[in-house]
Amino acid sequence: MRAVDIIHKKRSGDPLSREEIAFFVEGYTRGAIPDYQAAALAMAVYFRGMTSEETVALTESMMRTGEVLDLSDLPGPRVDKHSTGGVGDKTSLILAPLAAACGAFVPMISGRGLGHTGGTLDKLESIPGFRVGLSLKEFRDTLRRCGLGLIGQTPEIAPADRKLYALRDVTATVESLPLIAASIMSKKMAEGIDALVLDVKTGDGAFMKAFEDSKALAEAMVGIGRGMGKRVAALITDMEQPLGRTVGNALEVKESVETLQGRGPTDLESLSLELAAWMLSLARITPSLEAARTKVRDALSSGAGLRKLQEVIRLQGGDPRVCEDTSLLPRARETVELRAETEGRVVGIACRAVGQAAMLLGAGRETVDSRIDPAVGLVLHKKVGDLVHPGESLMTLHVDDRGRLDEATGMLREAVRIAREAPAARPLVRLVIDP
Amino acid sequence: MRAVDIIHKKRSGDPLSREEIAFFVEGYTRGAIPDYQAAALAMAVYFRGMTSEETVALTESMMRTGEVLDLSDLPGPRVDKHSTGGVGDKTSLILAPLAAACGAFVPMISGRGLGHTGGTLDKLESIPGFRVGLSLKEFRDTLRRCGLGLIGQTPEIAPADRKLYALRDVTATVESLPLIAASIMSKKMAEGIDALVLDVKTGDGAFMKAFEDSKALAEAMVGIGRGMGKRVAALITDMEQPLGRTVGNALEVKESVETLQGRGPTDLESLSLELAAWMLSLARITPSLEAARTKVRDALSSGAGLRKLQEVIRLQGGDPRVCEDTSLLPRARETVELRAETEGRVVGIACRAVGQAAMLLGAGRETVDSRIDPAVGLVLHKKVGDLVHPGESLMTLHVDDRGRLDEATGMLREAVRIAREAPAARPLVRLVIDP
Repeated sequence: MRAVDIIHKKRSGDPLSREEIAFFVEGYTRGAIPDYQAAALAMAVYFRGMTSEETVALTESMMRTGEVLDLSDLPGPRVDKHSTGGVGDKTSLILAPLAAACGAFVPMISGRGLGHTGGTLDKLESIPGFRVGLSLKEFRDTLRRCGLGLIGQTPEIAPADRKLYALRDVTATVESLPLIAASIMSKKMAEGIDALVLDVKTGDGAFMKAFEDSKALAEAMVGIGRGMGKRVAALITDMEQPLGRTVGNALEVKESVETLQGRGPTDLESLSLELAAWMLSLARITPSLEAARTKVRDALSSGAGLRKLQEVIRLQGGDPRVCEDTSLLPRARETVELRAETEGRVVGIACRAVGQAAMLLGAGRETVDSRIDPAVGLVLHKKVGDLVHPGESLMTLHVDDRGRLDEATGMLREAVRIAREAPAARPLVRLVIDP
Repeated sequence: MRAVDIIHKKRSGDPLSREEIAFFVEGYTRGAIPDYQAAALAMAVYFRGMTSEETVALTESMMRTGEVLDLSDLPGPRVDKHSTGGVGDKTSLILAPLAAACGAFVPMISGRGLGHTGGTLDKLESIPGFRVGLSLKEFRDTLRRCGLGLIGQTPEIAPADRKLYALRDVTATVESLPLIAASIMSKKMAEGIDALVLDVKTGDGAFMKAFEDSKALAEAMVGIGRGMGKRVAALITDMEQPLGRTVGNALEVKESVETLQGRGPTDLESLSLELAAWMLSLARITPSLEAARTKVRDALSSGAGLRKLQEVIRLQGGDPRVCEDTSLLPRARETVELRAETEGRVVGIACRAVGQAAMLLGAGRETVDSRIDPAVGLVLHKKVGDLVHPGESLMTLHVDDRGRLDEATGMLREAVRIAREAPAARPLVRLVIDP
């Protein structure tokens, strides 16, 4: 088998065999196939696409370049949730403890934020002392003891993906549906899970803005998961405005704690509960989705979810008192109000712009090397549909460094659109892919 | 400017600017842009194509990475011919001396054979002592003294092409029309010529088998040449059977000498004369193509062409006596006849197979590192349309090493198709592109 023949075959539009894909992925990962051949193949895949069989084979091959966790010794089903990323999306911090409190094991391996989107790891690291860099052994121990573990990508998991993603980033081959789907799923499927719920965001603040693109990505990923023998479903959810009221790491942890205390904003609470219910249902902890919804809601109202969060924080070296006193989280030096100038209703909040403004304040990364400030961000007081009066605060900015404050404020002022007429209500869950 | 943005632009189907193309080609050649980005761009070009403006800009950029000969001090027009390669195609050895004998300066930089196709350099090197590796200074001196010079590709000419071609070869991006056209033309346009005749072969033995593909390549190359301010035309010529009667290096030199002696086969003589006439006409040595045809024919019949060949052989270190006594050329140890088994007419000679059989005998290269044997090859006694009787020799194989003789003989026997009915006559020049 020769790499050039495999590239030629894909270039010509013929599907690759499972063996050819494995040969290429394995050879590329260990350096036997050079970057330039992988770049040519990635570009050919961009133009020719991949069948669902090819995409499954690609995902499996990438997964098998690294460690695949075997968690079959855990006394219960293993299930995770993955989000394609958004603004203010902190559901992981809420649903993982809830699902664990209901008897699931949640081995969650998360990423960091980049650009306008946040990352679960960054949020967790705003908790004083919290360690996301557990060894795989510590991860297993934590999982076994409390039903969940929250760590970052490790070098042992799917090294092919790390190498290929870095290459795609500099060869304009990121935007290929099968490559995106395989990249995500190769890491998730290495977690040793039985089931997975995908939260595929759609809209201005999402990776995929257009609904049809989000749907295609969701279908591709569900197809891969099922092709690999797992129970996988996807919820396509709205990202036309930030989720919840906070954007910024410590601010989002605070909001997550409040939500687990039963005091969270409606959209965040309902989406977290719905995703957690799907996790229980796919994990077959409950006989139906309806039963799962009831069980998850009980775990919220009983405080079991909050206690589970507290437990995992303690086990991973963080200060568990933040679950009782969120003032222990990092706080910014000053706050700045952004006030309404006109009367009317909020008809839109440009979600990507809000994410970028938060990044300018220091809550996110402009490049992978940027340092983030856990304390800064913003709190939205008005969301789409709310009435506003002149002089009322639209949002509070939490600021440590005024360097780019004017730029951020300008973006945020433009981001909030106020008009006379009320906007049409949008469902939070746009579509469920559960074939 | 960033390479990744240029790749992204091409991938999205937007034409690149002259500056973007120059930035990429220049950066790639000096190593500032890595192979993997060039591979991704080449694959994107494969799928998206290039406008004629982009193809001209690419050719110019590639040409400018190396030396561009300035031959303006020569006292006459500079003109060359380029062939896309075929089997038995030795017209360069005939038309270059003829054109030089008629007052043109022919700075011919040629290539070597690979696979089923032969190369002018290999043919020249079968002449005892002949040096194709002149320095550019020696090349200029030879040109000035006798009106032609025959050398190989030098490292100074279009280094971008050498680097990019090697990359395309291993990334399945050879078959891209704009990349092929720019590769050829970047080297030809560096020769410092005023005019160029392209002999684009079409049919079984050609690089482009399908007529429409050959036509597209011819049009692209003519477009580039004219876009660079040169007088360029293309003849699309038949390569459904070998040109002339010989295939193999010394055998082809012998046939070329015989043609310049007025004793050549009709097809070879007429195509050589026609291409030489186009050279004179484009170089404006004659006022019309008709006048050029007369002038070239006179140079043949007067022996001026043969004397010019003898002169350049002498100036480039070869034994000029081969022009009087072709038995001084290398000769194979033995000959083997391939005889007809049936009666009828030759209706086809699978051209690529003949080239490959000659390669198996040692006349060509299986890989770029193969060594060739100048003496071996074959002489066709029957061509398409000829009557054959059982037992009559179809061709004579000139053999030094019997190692792959059976394989070659088997291929050749299959290559010659004999049938009852006479085949339709095919024109040698299928189309002229002279917009």
